[in-house]
Amino acid sequence: MAIVEVTIVPLGTGDTSLSRYVAKCHEILKREEEIKYQLTPMGTIIEGDLDKILSTIRKMHEVPFGEGAKRVSTQIKIDDRRDKETSMERKVKAVESKLK
Amino acid sequence: MAIVEVTIVPLGTGDTSLSRYVAKCHEILKREEEIKYQLTPMGTIIEGDLDKILSTIRKMHEVPFGEGAKRVSTQIKIDDRRDKETSMERKVKAVESKLK
Amino acid sequence: MAIVEVTIVPLGTGDTSLSRYVAKCHEILKREEEIKYQLTPMGTIIEGDLDKILSTIRKMHEVPFGEGAKRVSTQIKIDDRRDKETSMERKVKAVESKLK
Amino acid sequence: MAIVEVTIVPLGTGDTSLSRYVAKCHEILKREEEIKYQLTPMGTIIEGDLDKILSTIRKMHEVPFGEGAKRVSTQIKIDDRRDKETSMERKVKAVESKLK
Repeated sequence: MAIVEVTIVPLGTGDTSLSRYVAKCHEILKREEEIKYQLTPMGTIIEGDLDKILSTIRKMHEVPFGEGAKRVSTQIKIDDRRDKETSMERKVKAVESKLK
Repeated sequence: MAIVEVTIVPLGTGDTSLSRYVAKCHEILKREEEIKYQLTPMGTIIEGDLDKILSTIRKMHEVPFGEGAKRVSTQIKIDDRRDKETSMERKVKAVESKLK
Repeated sequence: MAIVEVTIVPLGTGDTSLSRYVAKCHEILKREEEIKYQLTPMGTIIEGDLDKILSTIRKMHEVPFGEGAKRVSTQIKIDDRRDKETSMERKVKAVESKLK
Repeated sequence: MAIVEVTIVPLGTGDTSLSRYVAKCHEILKREEEIKYQLTPMGTIIEGDLDKILSTIRKMHEVPFGEGAKRVSTQIKIDDRRDKETSMERKVKAVESKLK
């Protein structure tokens, strides 16, 4: 199980607002049954099998092109921990339990 | 107002768990009155005046060194939008309102 | 043709030096015939077919685990431009030609 | 001494080409005497005192706004190693010396 953050940004579109591209990308995520995800103010965080996540992101990367973009900048940050079970929820709780 | 994501990671510490470093960094954030922040499974997102945020992150970057780390990798992603008021909350809502 | 930057970092290895992991990852790159790449002080930049690059990075991501790491942080930044031919060399030259 | 990678990207400019913004940012770098830097196909890598670098990046971040951009995405990746002297050149050589 990996946790992956992704941000997909079209460049040169003439519009400073990007939310419609993010929403279209989330339509792809919604169809995937084996992964969990959450939207943050700076990207999308996905939890699941790494290969499944990467193939999903590959599809998401095409979304802005389908909407007319000519250049897309996609960033992927993989956190792959194999010494113990992890999850988006556990990562946040591990920090919160240490906060006084 | 800018929205900034930050991740601070010590390298070579011999421990795969990083939550105690994140918790210590959040103690610094807690003391800052003019910024808002939220913890995500992949980092911390901060909202406020850009210079205020950057000086706070500069202090957070020292935390792992104070805990004994010899090498620290810090990543900062600034989203600075000046054509309209923005916030962490509005960014998420802008996407959610476009999801069917 | 896409240009992709990748950084693969093991966490919790107890050693601040990471060059041996990078060198091992480059052994994989060396075997790939259809891609070009260059090492920078902060990562590796790869040029070629996007799917070919992503499948190569997927193999590189396993390298630190093969060397005993229990947690790996991999970052991928894709610059995919489809309105004109691009290359690592052209991108740098486009900037340099504008410097006085 | 820290090594820092920076990428500054205007969003919503209507132009897929970004080289003129990068060139303008490099004019700021050229004026700074205490730092070294190099352009890569994916960003700019800077070596020097961390606070000096961060204040320089802060100025660079304003460049696209000065050129009319309304939204700027700036990414900063700090590699701060304090157990031994490091440099852009040494980091690359450390990897190359391990390649067969």
